[in-house]
Amino acid sequence: MMHNSGLQAQASDNKNALVYHPDPTSIRTGREARLQYRLSKVAPFTQTTGLANGFMQGSPVIIPAALALDFLTMCQRNSKPCPVIAVSGTGDPSLPTLGADIDVRTDIGGYRIWRHGELSEEVTDIRHLWRDDFVTFVIGCSYSFEDAMLRDGLELRHHTENVCVPMYRTNIPLVSAGPFSGEVCVSMRPFRARDAIRAIEITSRFPLTHGTPLHIGDPREIGIEDLSKPLVGDPVTVRPGELPVFWGCGITPQYSLLSAKPEIAITHKPGCLLISDVLSTSDALDMPRVASMNLR
Amino acid sequence: MMHNSGLQAQASDNKNALVYHPDPTSIRTGREARLQYRLSKVAPFTQTTGLANGFMQGSPVIIPAALALDFLTMCQRNSKPCPVIAVSGTGDPSLPTLGADIDVRTDIGGYRIWRHGELSEEVTDIRHLWRDDFVTFVIGCSYSFEDAMLRDGLELRHHTENVCVPMYRTNIPLVSAGPFSGEVCVSMRPFRARDAIRAIEITSRFPLTHGTPLHIGDPREIGIEDLSKPLVGDPVTVRPGELPVFWGCGITPQYSLLSAKPEIAITHKPGCLLISDVLSTSDALDMPRVASMNLR
Repeated sequence: MMHNSGLQAQASDNKNALVYHPDPTSIRTGREARLQYRLSKVAPFTQTTGLANGFMQGSPVIIPAALALDFLTMCQRNSKPCPVIAVSGTGDPSLPTLGADIDVRTDIGGYRIWRHGELSEEVTDIRHLWRDDFVTFVIGCSYSFEDAMLRDGLELRHHTENVCVPMYRTNIPLVSAGPFSGEVCVSMRPFRARDAIRAIEITSRFPLTHGTPLHIGDPREIGIEDLSKPLVGDPVTVRPGELPVFWGCGITPQYSLLSAKPEIAITHKPGCLLISDVLSTSDALDMPRVASMNLR
Repeated sequence: MMHNSGLQAQASDNKNALVYHPDPTSIRTGREARLQYRLSKVAPFTQTTGLANGFMQGSPVIIPAALALDFLTMCQRNSKPCPVIAVSGTGDPSLPTLGADIDVRTDIGGYRIWRHGELSEEVTDIRHLWRDDFVTFVIGCSYSFEDAMLRDGLELRHHTENVCVPMYRTNIPLVSAGPFSGEVCVSMRPFRARDAIRAIEITSRFPLTHGTPLHIGDPREIGIEDLSKPLVGDPVTVRPGELPVFWGCGITPQYSLLSAKPEIAITHKPGCLLISDVLSTSDALDMPRVASMNLR
């Protein structure tokens, strides 16, 4: 199980948040999981790892509409670290392209409220903060392609070692848009050469959950000096003969967003993702979409 | 060669526009092609088919920033017919993510100016019309995946018959965003079953140029009553034993845009696309560069 998938400052307390973990078999669909959160039937900040297995999860980013075009443009220009799987209407807390009856104000296990780029508070409901000019973006996360690698028999070291995947900041600049710039952040998974090739092959089928890696081999080539000191998450063992493989990471858009110091921004508490009604395997298609939608 | 890839009303005069066709071997890169247009070294409205082979081409859509977020959201929600390969900064006529030194005001062979959804004029330069609030979107076009199919030995009927690919309006609704709605438009290419499967396999590798088909087989299932009467383009022969295969088509976002009757919108004259510096095989920025068509 992963303990943490978010920003560094709160890395340690996320592990404590894992106090209650529902039996995954009791929550089988995205909608069931969302209702558990909405109706406060699970402990505050319960993480989503393992819930509603097989349904795509994503990171919400909620910002004022005045910033929305620049943010979406930044994501379009950096689609490996910032794959957008849904955009809401302005002021609309639903996300019909990801699932029936989603309310982004209540359906996520934990929210972080950021003011001028600083963490202001953590809450489990944002109805009191909602504004008519809020736009919600949902960023694809790596659970889909990790599922596919595990099903293929690949070992994911952070799973084996029962820690959070290590994440690093690279020296690869984002292609900026408006106030949004920064560097690409990556997650790292070590593999022997043959498995690394297979991992690249598999993840090439998941462009909306970061797709193929950005780098393989020497971390210094992308500005990472010490694999034992991740920016976020936990270090994992890299054995002799293994290559570290680096994928674009969903913390990238959050860092880029917050470095622009928006008046207000709302993200998820690490580990508490939005669970959709979209099958994880549908990520291999061009766009995720719920079964009720007409395309495909 | 295709004569036309745009809106119906002007289908016939596009063929006349093909008065001068530069020797493709003399224009080898996207930048060379753009300079030919910018410096008026080619005849007005010269089409881009065959120019700078191997470089991705795309359809420009230029609209006021007030409409940009809704338009980009509509594209995100309908990425098969509306794959966005670039977004400019507001008021910025360059597109650095698609190529060095692009000026969208001069580098396209022909522009259509639309006012309140009606065609107002056709020009070869829009510098006099440029506004500080214009945002340019570039939509992926089917040339990349057609190249890949041809290289694989598949027959493209509209090439064989030397006409424009037939395009149809379906009854599949777009997922709307703000004022933008409408139906998905598709292009059709007929294949025998085995080739159809191969065509699906190949185009699955090109998510930014419409990706896999939306439909195969009976056209009536998607609301197309008569294959001999395309909305745009020319009918092609469908032989006994062949299946019509339907892909999302880049005329979709133009129709959706114009049905919203924006005060002003600028698109390309059909056949006159923007030629980028991005290799067609890379399918677009941040996407895997695919050297092999083998899936897994």
